[in-house]
Amino acid sequence: MSIEATLKELGIDLPPPVAPVANYIPFVVTGNLVSISGQLPIKDGEIAYTGKVEEAVSIEEAGVAARLCGINLISQMKAACGGDLNRVKRVLKLGAFVNCKEGFGGQPQIINATSDLMVAVFGEKGRHSRSAVGTNALPRNVPVEIDALIEIE
Amino acid sequence: MSIEATLKELGIDLPPPVAPVANYIPFVVTGNLVSISGQLPIKDGEIAYTGKVEEAVSIEEAGVAARLCGINLISQMKAACGGDLNRVKRVLKLGAFVNCKEGFGGQPQIINATSDLMVAVFGEKGRHSRSAVGTNALPRNVPVEIDALIEIE
Amino acid sequence: MSIEATLKELGIDLPPPVAPVANYIPFVVTGNLVSISGQLPIKDGEIAYTGKVEEAVSIEEAGVAARLCGINLISQMKAACGGDLNRVKRVLKLGAFVNCKEGFGGQPQIINATSDLMVAVFGEKGRHSRSAVGTNALPRNVPVEIDALIEIE
Repeated sequence: MSIEATLKELGIDLPPPVAPVANYIPFVVTGNLVSISGQLPIKDGEIAYTGKVEEAVSIEEAGVAARLCGINLISQMKAACGGDLNRVKRVLKLGAFVNCKEGFGGQPQIINATSDLMVAVFGEKGRHSRSAVGTNALPRNVPVEIDALIEIE
Repeated sequence: MSIEATLKELGIDLPPPVAPVANYIPFVVTGNLVSISGQLPIKDGEIAYTGKVEEAVSIEEAGVAARLCGINLISQMKAACGGDLNRVKRVLKLGAFVNCKEGFGGQPQIINATSDLMVAVFGEKGRHSRSAVGTNALPRNVPVEIDALIEIE
Repeated sequence: MSIEATLKELGIDLPPPVAPVANYIPFVVTGNLVSISGQLPIKDGEIAYTGKVEEAVSIEEAGVAARLCGINLISQMKAACGGDLNRVKRVLKLGAFVNCKEGFGGQPQIINATSDLMVAVFGEKGRHSRSAVGTNALPRNVPVEIDALIEIE
């Protein structure tokens, strides 16, 4: 099954890739590697969640935010592949930051929403290495930011 | 001298690689590059240290925790090399996060325990680039998390 | 125009590359990729800024600090290229950490100083992917730390 068919089956309507707000670009391709800039939980062009996990947003909402970051990563992948997501050979690495309180230790559960999405969409090719850490602050006060390194063909 | 002999000389008994707790995998190989997921200070299958540096753990203990992360990284490297650590061509990059109080500036000294380990084990091949930063929170409230990018042959 | 001429035109006098303080090295070359260690806002061998953004340093000063990190990155690039910056083929990724208060969301504006520098110096080759996040603490209490992945020829 094509990745687009899988997305449809999952009920995911891929948004256009989010434009960066500054003098950087959403992804860079070098050979078969693509480095994708940190994506925020943006939906319909707007930040969908703000604030810290367990304060302004629940763990559940943070998971939805993390999944949104993942959808925006996939949208960038599609652009990097010239529109054909079947060219994604492997999701190599996700780098995830969770805006949280001192001592919060539940980053992995939150970022699982993104990891599960990658495997649901890309199957074995979506299985990736990962770092998930906490932070006291993120751009525009979002709860989650995630960047990625992928391989394409 | 083989890497295994060096490990023995250093008194390091390499544990089995730690299994990830979610839908990600401990490492991904692409060509000669291996991206290794963030490793925690786990010993004998248990988190060995929790809490912030200079609060729950001393700087010295944090160094031991950082070295544990390094041992777990080497264990993953061994798995990525099909059991033969002599295939490690270069440790390219360590990405280190230290769970600490506001304004703490001693991350480099703590992560030196990991850097020293890599050079002790791999010699020149263990000399790496590095980022070491602070954070207010890490998974399962550990004091240190470290990921790596390596080259194998 | 050569990169050195561009630097001169921009009034940038490239410092010698900053030596690492520990058992890691400032950059590692593998094939055409160069991973550069996290650079601090060091000028004339001294930390130029310390403290958190919006506390000890203003957003404007933090931008100057971020640009200093960028200049130190370029100095490392030059060393990695054997002295010839025209061998820089692409700045692939900047990884930026801003030492800030809880909930501060202005990391992108601060790191734009670095992104703008890369494009001013390298033109299209300087356009990069990026992650910019907050943190509660950085080495030696600096306000900004930035690492990089670049491609050379």
